[in-house]
Amino acid sequence: MKFSQFFIPTLREAPGNAAVISHKLMLRSGMIRQLANGLFAYLPLGLRSFRKLERIIREEMDAAGALEVKPTVVVPAELWKESGRWDTMGEALLRVKNRLNADFVISPTAEEAITALVRDDLSSYKQLPLNLYQINTKYRDEIRPRYGVIRGREFVMKDAYSFHTDDESLSQTYEDMGRAYRRIFRRCGLPVIPVRADSGAMGGSGSEEFMAESAIGDNTLILCKTCEYAANVEKAACKPDFTPTSIAAAKKAAEGLPAISRIDTPDIKSIAELCDFLKTGSKNFIKTLIYQASNPGGELLKSSIKGNIPDTLPVAVLIRGDLEVNEIKLASLLGASGVSLASDGEVVKITGAPVGFAGPAGLSGVLIIADETVCAMTNAITGALAKDAHYQNVAFGRDFEPNIIADIRTVAAGDRCPLCGGELYEKKGNELGHIFKLACKYTKAMKVTYLDVDGKAQTPLMGCYGIGLDRTLAAVIEEHHDNAGIVWPVSLAPFEALIVPVKYEGIVKDAADKLYAELRNLGIDTLLDDRDERAGVKFNDGDLIGIPFRAVIGDKNLKSGPPLIELKRRGDNEARLVELEKAAAIIAEEIRAELSSAYSAGGET
Amino acid sequence: MKFSQFFIPTLREAPGNAAVISHKLMLRSGMIRQLANGLFAYLPLGLRSFRKLERIIREEMDAAGALEVKPTVVVPAELWKESGRWDTMGEALLRVKNRLNADFVISPTAEEAITALVRDDLSSYKQLPLNLYQINTKYRDEIRPRYGVIRGREFVMKDAYSFHTDDESLSQTYEDMGRAYRRIFRRCGLPVIPVRADSGAMGGSGSEEFMAESAIGDNTLILCKTCEYAANVEKAACKPDFTPTSIAAAKKAAEGLPAISRIDTPDIKSIAELCDFLKTGSKNFIKTLIYQASNPGGELLKSSIKGNIPDTLPVAVLIRGDLEVNEIKLASLLGASGVSLASDGEVVKITGAPVGFAGPAGLSGVLIIADETVCAMTNAITGALAKDAHYQNVAFGRDFEPNIIADIRTVAAGDRCPLCGGELYEKKGNELGHIFKLACKYTKAMKVTYLDVDGKAQTPLMGCYGIGLDRTLAAVIEEHHDNAGIVWPVSLAPFEALIVPVKYEGIVKDAADKLYAELRNLGIDTLLDDRDERAGVKFNDGDLIGIPFRAVIGDKNLKSGPPLIELKRRGDNEARLVELEKAAAIIAEEIRAELSSAYSAGGET
Repeated sequence: MKFSQFFIPTLREAPGNAAVISHKLMLRSGMIRQLANGLFAYLPLGLRSFRKLERIIREEMDAAGALEVKPTVVVPAELWKESGRWDTMGEALLRVKNRLNADFVISPTAEEAITALVRDDLSSYKQLPLNLYQINTKYRDEIRPRYGVIRGREFVMKDAYSFHTDDESLSQTYEDMGRAYRRIFRRCGLPVIPVRADSGAMGGSGSEEFMAESAIGDNTLILCKTCEYAANVEKAACKPDFTPTSIAAAKKAAEGLPAISRIDTPDIKSIAELCDFLKTGSKNFIKTLIYQASNPGGELLKSSIKGNIPDTLPVAVLIRGDLEVNEIKLASLLGASGVSLASDGEVVKITGAPVGFAGPAGLSGVLIIADETVCAMTNAITGALAKDAHYQNVAFGRDFEPNIIADIRTVAAGDRCPLCGGELYEKKGNELGHIFKLACKYTKAMKVTYLDVDGKAQTPLMGCYGIGLDRTLAAVIEEHHDNAGIVWPVSLAPFEALIVPVKYEGIVKDAADKLYAELRNLGIDTLLDDRDERAGVKFNDGDLIGIPFRAVIGDKNLKSGPPLIELKRRGDNEARLVELEKAAAIIAEEIRAELSSAYSAGGET
Repeated sequence: MKFSQFFIPTLREAPGNAAVISHKLMLRSGMIRQLANGLFAYLPLGLRSFRKLERIIREEMDAAGALEVKPTVVVPAELWKESGRWDTMGEALLRVKNRLNADFVISPTAEEAITALVRDDLSSYKQLPLNLYQINTKYRDEIRPRYGVIRGREFVMKDAYSFHTDDESLSQTYEDMGRAYRRIFRRCGLPVIPVRADSGAMGGSGSEEFMAESAIGDNTLILCKTCEYAANVEKAACKPDFTPTSIAAAKKAAEGLPAISRIDTPDIKSIAELCDFLKTGSKNFIKTLIYQASNPGGELLKSSIKGNIPDTLPVAVLIRGDLEVNEIKLASLLGASGVSLASDGEVVKITGAPVGFAGPAGLSGVLIIADETVCAMTNAITGALAKDAHYQNVAFGRDFEPNIIADIRTVAAGDRCPLCGGELYEKKGNELGHIFKLACKYTKAMKVTYLDVDGKAQTPLMGCYGIGLDRTLAAVIEEHHDNAGIVWPVSLAPFEALIVPVKYEGIVKDAADKLYAELRNLGIDTLLDDRDERAGVKFNDGDLIGIPFRAVIGDKNLKSGPPLIELKRRGDNEARLVELEKAAAIIAEEIRAELSSAYSAGGET
């Protein structure tokens, strides 16, 4: 491709609303343009990289035995009503009525559509396992789109859905998809952190997120310095730094301990102030927080509450003073769609005390949930349910009894690894891919069955496997750039080689045309910068758009002995002189070497 | 690919709502499934053909210098408001509000989005010409989707938009696109009828539709038996079968003719009844039809009407009794968004006479538009603007004067070609592609400019070029099928070769595996039917899905002398025996030959 016949509108500066480097560089290099907040168009340069990523993903999916399909982007709402998500997806689901007043969804994900397709044509166990995937447009009505294509409203996902007769088959495909994902990211030159939901103490039947480390990541990851433990902070566990006990044992152990007593704490509300006042550490406090849980449910709650469970359930949550409550764990414990701190008014109503003086001793009429840490506390300080008053020597079991005890702490850097006891640390990450065992969630709701070997109707198990293309491309740029621009790995580079004739005329033009023809014959994606611009401008544009190999052709080098050109890898500081005659072969060989090493690097894990 | 690892849910019968052969065969062969009325999902088999068509189109677009981009499917309404089409597109435009109450459009076409992209980055004439295309999802809220993917609601189009400094450059790209389209259809093995808007008397600055002949076509085409004239009936012209004259000349010529006179025609309304009654032919009548034109405008009308032009304008239309008014021509003449026949009440009000007795002589207070044919009529019969009365000997010019005279007749089979005078005939067709010179319509409305060589701001000219992928695929099936199923051309076949081992075991399995490996090594898309089914079932499925080459491997042929297999082209009646050793090479060579002949057949036109 000749530069003058292509369309690369580079920008000196990125627009002000571009906050992260990948967004800036994608705009500056002319890869993308914004059509509206969260809606990005790919220009020809960006689309070349996008298509290469698409091809890598397609190759790996096909190699893993998945079959490509193409459902529609506009999907009838009936299917979402069948699965129940029409009601539960909230406002991120873009809904639309057509001219006949029928409801449709602009697809944000395709469990429903694919399950419906399979339902229509699945009859026998002989058709299973079946793994169908698409690479298609999705829409999520993000309330606050940001970071360019990392969190856009419209995006492209590869999403696969597999169907199975048994868990062994599901696990097989799940593992195959995990391997395919690792190959995909390796071919993109992208290190990812695999976050397994079942690698920690949380259990779970199978879910793995593929995270790209990023300072602007949406996810906080908890990693172990010693072993491979990696968890999303939403689910991360840690090794206890306390010795938990049962209520009965705690009661007994508390017999000889100092009795609970009230202390005056005038005008003191925060734990920090109390620590100063009482000259002790926050570890000796029990924090009591009042939450409202939305749509709670589940077995645990049914066994803890008599009668009907209300739509909004207030709960008192106890946790050691130096720790934070993990609201995701709390919501999950309560089977709730979410939890939020109660308002001051609600706190007063529930505890009968001013805000800042809640405590478990004497608290009644509300479900009390204690983090496990609280079970080891025998002489804690808590609010006394009255203005300017606290209790000291509060003992778990003796002075209060929670209704539910569970792990609801937020694990943080410095905590200990639940697997090996090593020190945990934090990273920010963006989720690029996710593989997940869905079991029967959709197949049951949407009444999919097949006949097993005995002719009996059975519900198939299901897995789903997603990868976001746009954000993967952005993550590669976040990982591979320098001050001058993008540093593409060969596998995703819009062009693999750039030819820069210092001036496109005379013998320089002849040499440039010759090298261009040779590279194209070797199947190398080549851009020839034939513009009538200063060499410096061409170099800057080449660095900005990040083409891996740059061949500079100038008068002087062509005339010295055997004609020479300057060859430079985009990431290198120095160029080297190579013979014009050999240049194409050298470039082709180095491209082949990078592609094959990217393909094999790291081995299977 | 092995059949058992693929997903081809063939059906013995197509669902009842499938009315046309392509729809039936796409369902029966397991290419597509319906998710909702007008919404079709491609299953793996169908998607393979779809992707091949996509590749053919992409190759031809790239070869013609067009650059691929990817705008969003969900497009901000602002752009459609700028172009004006937010108001004029009507209900076929699917509109959606997001959670922030902003308006969006599910893109049915991308003039607005592409024009906006170019506007942002176009600065200099040096960037032109520029031709951007996408192959992307579109949505049109058809009120009555039908014929499967031929007229679906969601579909995929290749649409290209080119930008130019001058008409010569626009014409160049327009011609290039026309050539690319002819190559695309040729490679698909699809004869198309090119319908040029400017090939007839209607004029027009450049528009060509590519029509596939089809009994269920939406378009009526007028073709010449002698020359290459082809026009959409909406615009078709014909050679006059009358001698038109001016009003002045007509007045003069009418001087010696019999005077207009009234005749009683009790209880006679239709022209057929009048013909019987007066013992004459319909050619001697002038039909007077009252139309209502919606949102009329344009220069011609401004010069014909004094004062403001109303939103709904009644007009009296005169045409020779044996002809039909072409409402598209009429609307276009009046610059109206549409025309419709007036209600009986309106007719009475406008003509002052009962329905069935309108006529031009004495008619006033309404704009009178005459088809050219009327200008040759000197002794016509017309309504007399009174119950049970007609006029005879009505002469154009003497007894009435139309306000506007134009060609508004519907051309029909039997009329004469406007180019050569040959006989015209009719065909039904579906539009698969359309290339169109838009000139400044969008660039002006959306304020796109570039600086010309003198540094002056100019508005670029624009062309647009669309092809519908789904309906092209369906058209290929309409063209290439027999009673047993689809007969794919190699270029679009989901698999190029099918291997049918009569029983997949022993030496038959060995031979099948060997041929499978050889064909794959040669790069042939091969399906091996490894199912434990009767040979007849495998043959029927193979015929239904239409794979071009079928290799049947059986015990007996393998054992006779050099091992033989049965090779059969899908369209042929007879199979031939070829040596197993040579089979792969023979199939590969015949595939190569078909692809290269499809590529070159017909030459450039």
